[in-house]
Amino acid sequence: MTLAVHYLAARTLDTAPAEPSPPGPGEVQLAPAYVGICGTDLHIFHGDMDARVTTPAVLGHEMSGRIVRVGPGVEGWQPGDAVTVMPLRWDDSCPACLKGHQYICQHLDFIGIDSPGAMQQRWNVPAATLVRLPESLALDRAALVEPTAVAVHDVGRAQVRVGEKAVVVGGGPVGILIALVARGAGAEVRVVELSAHRRLLAAELGLTAWNPADDDVPALVGEWTGDAGADVAFEVSGAAGGVDTAVDVLGVRGRLCLVAIHPRPREVNLHRFFWRELTLIGARLYDRADFEKAVALVADGTIPADRLISKVVPLAEAPLAFEALQGGGDVMKILVDCGNDPTGALA
Amino acid sequence: MTLAVHYLAARTLDTAPAEPSPPGPGEVQLAPAYVGICGTDLHIFHGDMDARVTTPAVLGHEMSGRIVRVGPGVEGWQPGDAVTVMPLRWDDSCPACLKGHQYICQHLDFIGIDSPGAMQQRWNVPAATLVRLPESLALDRAALVEPTAVAVHDVGRAQVRVGEKAVVVGGGPVGILIALVARGAGAEVRVVELSAHRRLLAAELGLTAWNPADDDVPALVGEWTGDAGADVAFEVSGAAGGVDTAVDVLGVRGRLCLVAIHPRPREVNLHRFFWRELTLIGARLYDRADFEKAVALVADGTIPADRLISKVVPLAEAPLAFEALQGGGDVMKILVDCGNDPTGALA
Repeated sequence: MTLAVHYLAARTLDTAPAEPSPPGPGEVQLAPAYVGICGTDLHIFHGDMDARVTTPAVLGHEMSGRIVRVGPGVEGWQPGDAVTVMPLRWDDSCPACLKGHQYICQHLDFIGIDSPGAMQQRWNVPAATLVRLPESLALDRAALVEPTAVAVHDVGRAQVRVGEKAVVVGGGPVGILIALVARGAGAEVRVVELSAHRRLLAAELGLTAWNPADDDVPALVGEWTGDAGADVAFEVSGAAGGVDTAVDVLGVRGRLCLVAIHPRPREVNLHRFFWRELTLIGARLYDRADFEKAVALVADGTIPADRLISKVVPLAEAPLAFEALQGGGDVMKILVDCGNDPTGALA
Repeated sequence: MTLAVHYLAARTLDTAPAEPSPPGPGEVQLAPAYVGICGTDLHIFHGDMDARVTTPAVLGHEMSGRIVRVGPGVEGWQPGDAVTVMPLRWDDSCPACLKGHQYICQHLDFIGIDSPGAMQQRWNVPAATLVRLPESLALDRAALVEPTAVAVHDVGRAQVRVGEKAVVVGGGPVGILIALVARGAGAEVRVVELSAHRRLLAAELGLTAWNPADDDVPALVGEWTGDAGADVAFEVSGAAGGVDTAVDVLGVRGRLCLVAIHPRPREVNLHRFFWRELTLIGARLYDRADFEKAVALVADGTIPADRLISKVVPLAEAPLAFEALQGGGDVMKILVDCGNDPTGALA
């Protein structure tokens, strides 16, 4: 028997024994090593996504681990291989897929939300979702590859170029990763974040962070850019005020990359979009190229993943970690250690 | 003495004699032939732009005419040349200009709003603003070049490609011109317009037009596109509902070109921008390449300009035409005939 974390109902998780099934054709069975807790997992935990999630649900889509068994017909993978998973399955037949945008398939199966995720000791996934990890990359750091792939995708959607000035509104895990990826792409970056804890971490990473409660952010951007305004802004806060800030800081022809989820419509200063010929660019998830670049950025230290890991908790304590995370701003990333030993055998 | 139309105060225009001054260095003196009345002129007439406009103001920026006199230092132009004017002056030193986007200069002088316009019998403009008209192009049709340049710019900003499906929300003059330019670029086009008169005109131009009050526009777009959604939408209505429609009709990676002015913030369904990776593209004015392409499109009949001219009124009746236009939907474009004979001499 192995252990799995189950979401049962709003604010109710448990850890229960599960009987692993063998991998089917085209699948591999993984031993997850570390699984990050994501904002989306918290939304599920709060019950906000009950219409979409079938209970009992196994959460978790930011992971690293090793292959334990290879199912029939799987080639190119061996037990013991270190991997992460790009947790997407598409139907290859909807209009989005036919246009080549499979990762935003109109019938997307997001593994860890729409189907069972990684917070368990054995996890079967299609071999097509696997992304190889270099042996030199520690598996705890590798659990940051998935959110880094989000950041890579966002920076790519915004077409950030060397020497540009970028403002990241929201300095949580994804915001900080965007700031680091944009800096790696040659941009100068400023972060806007309410939490003092997160601003301090940003500063430790060499990122200038402003507090929108105390600082006049558009004025600071004006000083920084010689009144030109920023080339790029990323809205990662999910707050109405964050949208305003991201619009207000942009210069002529500036691009606003919309990363955060805004469940309800937001008032947007469309006049400024017209007047300055701004562009708003929606960005969701990632494709395989983003994922592979994310592996490289975590492996080469562009993303100092260890600095973003606030805490590692054992699988049995995952329910408590979700409770603790509700507080918000004083942590960055919490990982769940699935209790498999480094070779993928059960510890 | 010549005549000029003056805006004096909200809803107050008069026609009064004016003493023409000779063209200064680098300027030409024009005899305007026809001047179109634009939505912006109506905003000024309503008093909405009193903070920006210095009275008495001469309105008018959609024009055709001939050169009467050439000022010192002007080369390449002769009296009698048929021209239109790209009514923009920039400072060449602001951040927008330094980035190469002079037409949205942060200190733009829009001639006809910020400085005297074309609704007069003699008009001095910088030679740099002139755009040559072919002799074969009738001057009444040529008065449609400026709004056509807006449409060319919008279709260019939206990067409309052959075979794409485009929805134009708002079928006034600029909306119809966008529809015609997009069709000329190889797109399939649908127009959404409340006014029966304007839908009828669209139909006469071979454009399918839907009534958003009676038709379920997103459902019609679904049928039209096999549930893929449109590739491009243009928001030209200026209405809150128009923004919603333009967002709702777009398919994955769809582009929404924002043409209309929305003076107040609008609620926007940002979740759909995220979910479908939509892009919102602000578009304002035009550059010289847009203007020259617009001349070609009006001259070659891609824009059947004569069909868009609802009425031509003499200069002395311009104030009455502004009153009549307040009603709205039952006209397309009204031209003011400045009363100069075809050679540019006073009639």
